[in-house]
Amino acid sequence: MATKKWVYRFSAEQTEGNRSMKDLLGGKGANLAEMASLGLRVPPGFTISTEACIDYQNNKKVINEDVKTQVLESLKFIEKITQKKFGDSVAPLLFSVRSGARASMPGMMDTVLNLGLNDKTVEGLAHVTNNPRFAWDSYRRFIQMYANVVIGLNISLLEACMEDLKEARGYHLDTDLQAADLKELVGHYKRIILEETGKAFPTDPMEQLWMAVGAVFGSWNNARAIKYRNLHNIPHNWGTAVNIQSMVFGNLGEDSATGVCFTRDPGTGLKRFFGEYLLNAQGEDVVAGIRTPGPINNFSKNDANRSLKTLEEVMPVVYAELCDVYQKLEHHYRDMQDIEFTVEKQKLYILQTRNGKRTANAGIQIAVDLVKEKILSEKEALMRVNPEDLNQLLHPRLDPNAKKEVLANGLPASPGAASGEIVFTADQAVKLHEAGRKVMLVRQETSPEDIAGMVAAEGIITARGGMTSHAAVVARGMGKPCVAGCSALKVDHENKILTVKDREYKEGDFLTIDGATGEVMDGVVPTLEAKVSDSFGEFMKWADAVRRLKVRANADNPQDAFIARKFGAQGIGLCRTEHMFFDPERILAVREMIFAKNKSERERALAKLLPFQRDDFFGIFKAMDGLPSNIRLLDPPLHEFLPNELHEKEELARSLHVSLLEIDERAKQLHEFNPMLGHRGCRLGITFPEIYKVQVRAILEAGIMAQSQGVKVHPEIMIPLVATIKELSLLKQDLEEVAKQVFEEKKQTLQYKVGTMIELPRAAIMAGELSQVAEFFSYGTNDLTQTTFGLSRDDAGKFLGEYVAKGILDADPFITLDQSGVGFLIEYSNRIGKEKNSKLHTGICGEHGGESRSIQFCHKAGLDYVSCSPFRVPIARLAAAQAAIENGK
Amino acid sequence: MATKKWVYRFSAEQTEGNRSMKDLLGGKGANLAEMASLGLRVPPGFTISTEACIDYQNNKKVINEDVKTQVLESLKFIEKITQKKFGDSVAPLLFSVRSGARASMPGMMDTVLNLGLNDKTVEGLAHVTNNPRFAWDSYRRFIQMYANVVIGLNISLLEACMEDLKEARGYHLDTDLQAADLKELVGHYKRIILEETGKAFPTDPMEQLWMAVGAVFGSWNNARAIKYRNLHNIPHNWGTAVNIQSMVFGNLGEDSATGVCFTRDPGTGLKRFFGEYLLNAQGEDVVAGIRTPGPINNFSKNDANRSLKTLEEVMPVVYAELCDVYQKLEHHYRDMQDIEFTVEKQKLYILQTRNGKRTANAGIQIAVDLVKEKILSEKEALMRVNPEDLNQLLHPRLDPNAKKEVLANGLPASPGAASGEIVFTADQAVKLHEAGRKVMLVRQETSPEDIAGMVAAEGIITARGGMTSHAAVVARGMGKPCVAGCSALKVDHENKILTVKDREYKEGDFLTIDGATGEVMDGVVPTLEAKVSDSFGEFMKWADAVRRLKVRANADNPQDAFIARKFGAQGIGLCRTEHMFFDPERILAVREMIFAKNKSERERALAKLLPFQRDDFFGIFKAMDGLPSNIRLLDPPLHEFLPNELHEKEELARSLHVSLLEIDERAKQLHEFNPMLGHRGCRLGITFPEIYKVQVRAILEAGIMAQSQGVKVHPEIMIPLVATIKELSLLKQDLEEVAKQVFEEKKQTLQYKVGTMIELPRAAIMAGELSQVAEFFSYGTNDLTQTTFGLSRDDAGKFLGEYVAKGILDADPFITLDQSGVGFLIEYSNRIGKEKNSKLHTGICGEHGGESRSIQFCHKAGLDYVSCSPFRVPIARLAAAQAAIENGK
Repeated sequence: MATKKWVYRFSAEQTEGNRSMKDLLGGKGANLAEMASLGLRVPPGFTISTEACIDYQNNKKVINEDVKTQVLESLKFIEKITQKKFGDSVAPLLFSVRSGARASMPGMMDTVLNLGLNDKTVEGLAHVTNNPRFAWDSYRRFIQMYANVVIGLNISLLEACMEDLKEARGYHLDTDLQAADLKELVGHYKRIILEETGKAFPTDPMEQLWMAVGAVFGSWNNARAIKYRNLHNIPHNWGTAVNIQSMVFGNLGEDSATGVCFTRDPGTGLKRFFGEYLLNAQGEDVVAGIRTPGPINNFSKNDANRSLKTLEEVMPVVYAELCDVYQKLEHHYRDMQDIEFTVEKQKLYILQTRNGKRTANAGIQIAVDLVKEKILSEKEALMRVNPEDLNQLLHPRLDPNAKKEVLANGLPASPGAASGEIVFTADQAVKLHEAGRKVMLVRQETSPEDIAGMVAAEGIITARGGMTSHAAVVARGMGKPCVAGCSALKVDHENKILTVKDREYKEGDFLTIDGATGEVMDGVVPTLEAKVSDSFGEFMKWADAVRRLKVRANADNPQDAFIARKFGAQGIGLCRTEHMFFDPERILAVREMIFAKNKSERERALAKLLPFQRDDFFGIFKAMDGLPSNIRLLDPPLHEFLPNELHEKEELARSLHVSLLEIDERAKQLHEFNPMLGHRGCRLGITFPEIYKVQVRAILEAGIMAQSQGVKVHPEIMIPLVATIKELSLLKQDLEEVAKQVFEEKKQTLQYKVGTMIELPRAAIMAGELSQVAEFFSYGTNDLTQTTFGLSRDDAGKFLGEYVAKGILDADPFITLDQSGVGFLIEYSNRIGKEKNSKLHTGICGEHGGESRSIQFCHKAGLDYVSCSPFRVPIARLAAAQAAIENGK
Repeated sequence: MATKKWVYRFSAEQTEGNRSMKDLLGGKGANLAEMASLGLRVPPGFTISTEACIDYQNNKKVINEDVKTQVLESLKFIEKITQKKFGDSVAPLLFSVRSGARASMPGMMDTVLNLGLNDKTVEGLAHVTNNPRFAWDSYRRFIQMYANVVIGLNISLLEACMEDLKEARGYHLDTDLQAADLKELVGHYKRIILEETGKAFPTDPMEQLWMAVGAVFGSWNNARAIKYRNLHNIPHNWGTAVNIQSMVFGNLGEDSATGVCFTRDPGTGLKRFFGEYLLNAQGEDVVAGIRTPGPINNFSKNDANRSLKTLEEVMPVVYAELCDVYQKLEHHYRDMQDIEFTVEKQKLYILQTRNGKRTANAGIQIAVDLVKEKILSEKEALMRVNPEDLNQLLHPRLDPNAKKEVLANGLPASPGAASGEIVFTADQAVKLHEAGRKVMLVRQETSPEDIAGMVAAEGIITARGGMTSHAAVVARGMGKPCVAGCSALKVDHENKILTVKDREYKEGDFLTIDGATGEVMDGVVPTLEAKVSDSFGEFMKWADAVRRLKVRANADNPQDAFIARKFGAQGIGLCRTEHMFFDPERILAVREMIFAKNKSERERALAKLLPFQRDDFFGIFKAMDGLPSNIRLLDPPLHEFLPNELHEKEELARSLHVSLLEIDERAKQLHEFNPMLGHRGCRLGITFPEIYKVQVRAILEAGIMAQSQGVKVHPEIMIPLVATIKELSLLKQDLEEVAKQVFEEKKQTLQYKVGTMIELPRAAIMAGELSQVAEFFSYGTNDLTQTTFGLSRDDAGKFLGEYVAKGILDADPFITLDQSGVGFLIEYSNRIGKEKNSKLHTGICGEHGGESRSIQFCHKAGLDYVSCSPFRVPIARLAAAQAAIENGK
């Protein structure tokens, strides 16, 4: 039987892996092999496979003999091609040792450089480089790294030792240390290691190597790595590979250098080679930021480096070679690359290449350009952009170069950056806004009564509430920046003082927020306006051509409907009629209705609401000309409409001619222990049929008005919180009676559909029955998640964080749809519903409708559309396209 | 093609139906045919089929010609065998016309007697009976009934007319009216009908007949009947049959009689023929209660009728014939019969037989006796008793002969009758109970703090709350009478006044309740103690032999466990550990735990609870020696343990050395919008692991103590409110650590199982995963119903009544399990769970575990056991047996 292959070489002379072998060689190892195969000059080396790691774990943490044999063979091979020798005092071969798992995974051992140095080889290095200081400094750094990551020594002991020496010599900088100092320091380091561990620092390079390999293997199972894998659902049996690569040095003098470059501009996406470099430096030095790196070419110049020479000027041959390399790599990988290189004595080495990070704008530009350059197909280009990144494009953002002082971090509840002077009440927000001032609404938490203030404000900050709190949901719907649940803020509404970190802010003080990061900042931080390029439009056209899922928007008024359409919405997926009830002139009629003593009083109050609602629906129908508008009948429990503030109660009592006591009495009657599971949704429609009847009348009258003006009206009337077929059929019957009346009165008919929310587990289970009566299902995944999990969105904040942190939940299920639980109910009911009624139309209108992973799911589950807040429509369009590309239409 | 058969005869000479033909002939018609076939003397007649009714409805409410032809043929046949003629002035044939559907169904037209009388035939009747007064009175009654049920006239017009005549003549009683008076009255009646309807009263007997038949058919679709069918899910296309039967008269003189008899004593079930009769009377007269009926034999004598002669004495031949009949009928129907008979001139006619109503005791006695008499098999006997009736046997009940004044009706929350003096607080209940007095606890609603008072009281009344409110659930668990949600009561706790119907009751006044009916009564109404017979024991043994489902009890303390075992429980299905926390000496430690500032303070407070819990578990294990005890770890949210009353808060503040403000602050922090969906169940176990750890320690230490004394201990540790596999596996891990510690400390191990409640839809959906970790599933159907329906048990009271009344729900889903919705989740998860883990043990521990229909479902769904309150264990045992008989084991 042939011995198993555990070790894979990469070099110009022999390369045994390629980029498809990530499972076996890890990401880093596979890419090194790939680059070597491409003929790029990669420092030669070899990779010990992930299987060897697993074998090590299962074999009492012993590296097996076959692995050792193969490592030694490859080591000999590297010695041969580099003409150096491991452990040699004349031409010593040194290695870097790095871990590299299948997926990028922090928490494991990272890197040991210069492995192979000892008291003998360091002299060889000094001789070869003709630079004793460099050699001893390399040795010192090696011992320090080794002590830290292989031995696990507390590194501050060594650091303190170096500081003592510097102080004794009167030095200020590390660079003041001379070769002799560094040699002395090496002696101290070795002594400390012996004292602390009871074992001498290994001077045998082979022992160093085995120890380092064992340390990398072992680090796969250290606590941080396990926790990370648990959190990210990475299997524990993958293991990590170990990359052993010969060292090259960019710090051997002015003919050496190190740098990083991008094949295109990562900020704009423009096709121009871009990067920076440092002469006589190692990679770490670029990161450390002590010296300002130079631009590699004229394109890469900026205010900070304009005075420095370009690599093109300093090393024209190397630069020309680098240009060849970057073109080769970009063509090969078919994406913009982020490349690390080192120049050792005018010789260019490529150390790493990977797809480069970029801004959202650049991402789209690059994707569109790559299609035009015939490098990518349209579908491939669509897969290259993360839908969530589009958020950056559609909202103003902080100027990345601006200074900012972050006061506190809350939840990134609604993206966009905004500044404004603090107000503590919705009324004040409206007042100042009307006076032309920019305000930031700061509240403990918001309620429906704050809507007008939220509209008036530039941004909203709340101290309480989660990603799906009232403030967050409404702000996202408006496309308004919001930081929610910022618990570091103490909001004193009474005295109008905001306290954060012992600093007090008053009305009139300015704050800035970044709703994409959750940051709350002092004063006014400059922002950049959102703007979309032509490429964006082209890109989205491709997305629309490819997707099967339609994308609608949640919009409660004509203005939102208009914005939604501008963003490409193909209809309204959810119009929450209760949002029409909070306007000051309307809320009184709503409250009259609640205090009505009988049906006729209730009808009288409702009649006052009819024209308001009709106007709103009319505006929405006009905005949606030719597209469907899904309108949900009243959903929240009536107590949500009652006033909380004393002065409002008094006003209500006056206008209803009742006592304050009666107001409180009724509030008490309406109080519920669990309002989420209470007297709401269609349960209101059943007990107070006249509420739904007046809403249906408003919808149909508005529809007929619009139709008379030539607008194509497609109303979908949606009944919420249905649990049983009889609720739905009874209410549909009521609704049809109203329709008959309206059509007779207006001598005109109107096509409309009737359907239901699926937001209770029972509704999902009974889908087969419900689809006999409903023409559409709309999944209200917010409530469906609450009931399926038995988890109140308003209360879960107290422990959901801990749940996610402990890995009990992968993600907040109110943000990312729980596919196995809630998703089961959606898949099941969608399948059964369509089996029983082939014309059934289905979509999702919960918050999840705008979240990429959830949209993937909706596609696979076979829904017809998703609906989300207007500003997320482009995101949903792209996510839907990606779902179609990945899963077929 | 042969004409369809629409009409079926019953008579000694020819009978065309039998009791299996209920669908076609209705219940009444099928039984009349059956009795005629048995050779009993049934007044001859015929039945028009239910199909004719449907035909009539579909045929513009016209009786089709074939039906008419067949009716006429059968009418001729009856004329022939009775030697009378319909419409004849010499020997007139008269009919009763009655509806009779497949299922007993109130709301339809009932009965018209003496049909066929007119001005001519009345003379014939007078002549034949030699009794003109009888004849004219029969005629008058006929017109009145006809006017009422066929014409739909307001009957008070006729009644007023009769009263006028009586006044004019100076009569007091109806019987004062002479033949001439009645004749005059008939004239008046006919005139009124003409005036009111514009049409003359039909004197043609055939017209009378067709009108009556049409009226019966039509009544199938009157509003009341439709509503009844909607409510009871009776299909609208069944239709009703019409029974047309020749009249016999028990009021033709002293040689005629009418009566009702039971083949066995319906009160005790003893095998003795029992009944009463009236000479010279019609069936209505027995019901009217003007004369005291006589006993048919000596067995039937009681204080009221002891002085009257028996039928046996007065008509020995008829009595002997009746004895033959009753034995024949009981043997034929194999059950105790309730028989109506009429004697017309010494000739016995049987008008009706049906299974007789009986007390629960009698029902069991009869069932057991019928088995001994080899009439029934044991299984048949088991099917004869309604499990719910056993409730009567296990609780004291009102003396049926006692006088009572019902003040108000509430919900029958927990069966049994009790009297006591009113107290308004739990404290007062305990105090008076200790002084040897009997108290009735009256509360607006109860909370866990009232438990001690509930234990002390004879019965509990609440003004608010439903069948599954705290008071109801706890009272049922204790087997204590309770009337809940009695909204007619105004409870003024402050002034200690109970107001009902403008009457005030104070502390010390007495009330009586019947928890089986929901009645609240003034003063002390005598009650009868519960007692079970030997037959009961034998009957239950048969049930136990036949059932597959095991029956466990919900018990939270040793006392309940003891009672449960006495009632035949095969283990504890649910021990709610939080119920152990409310005792005054314990609640303080619980509150200390809640106010703990860190883990170690929390552990210190919890340590105080350890011995209490250990003692309780020890007692429970001893009571359950050899049987499993399922113990649920803490479930309710912590805020449920906080004090509400000021003096308690003050006490707590003192004992914790904190301010009252801090107490309120913490309460505010813990407040939840939807506590049902909040921080409770295993979510507490995740965030405060030390709570569950101390509970597990108490369980295991108690188990080891008991085991050391030779008790066989089988603890099942149950983790509540699980939604994800990781919650369960994390907590199981914690629990196993504690077990390891305890076993090491005690140097002894103990077998235990770990499992989970399935009470969230997500848990049911994820059953396949959960069953990999759980050894058992226990369905918490209360919460599962709440979450599946999105319906709060505490809030649903406001509209659930309307839901049931409107037929949206067949029954309160918190009482009878919703099989199609919640049941789907149970069936699915039980199936999947057992597929993935063949050793998985499953049961139900919600309130539904003691409800017969739900138990049927649990059997069919394949669960292993049901668990219910101790007093319902016998009911569950019988229901489980019936389920096994009906569906196979």
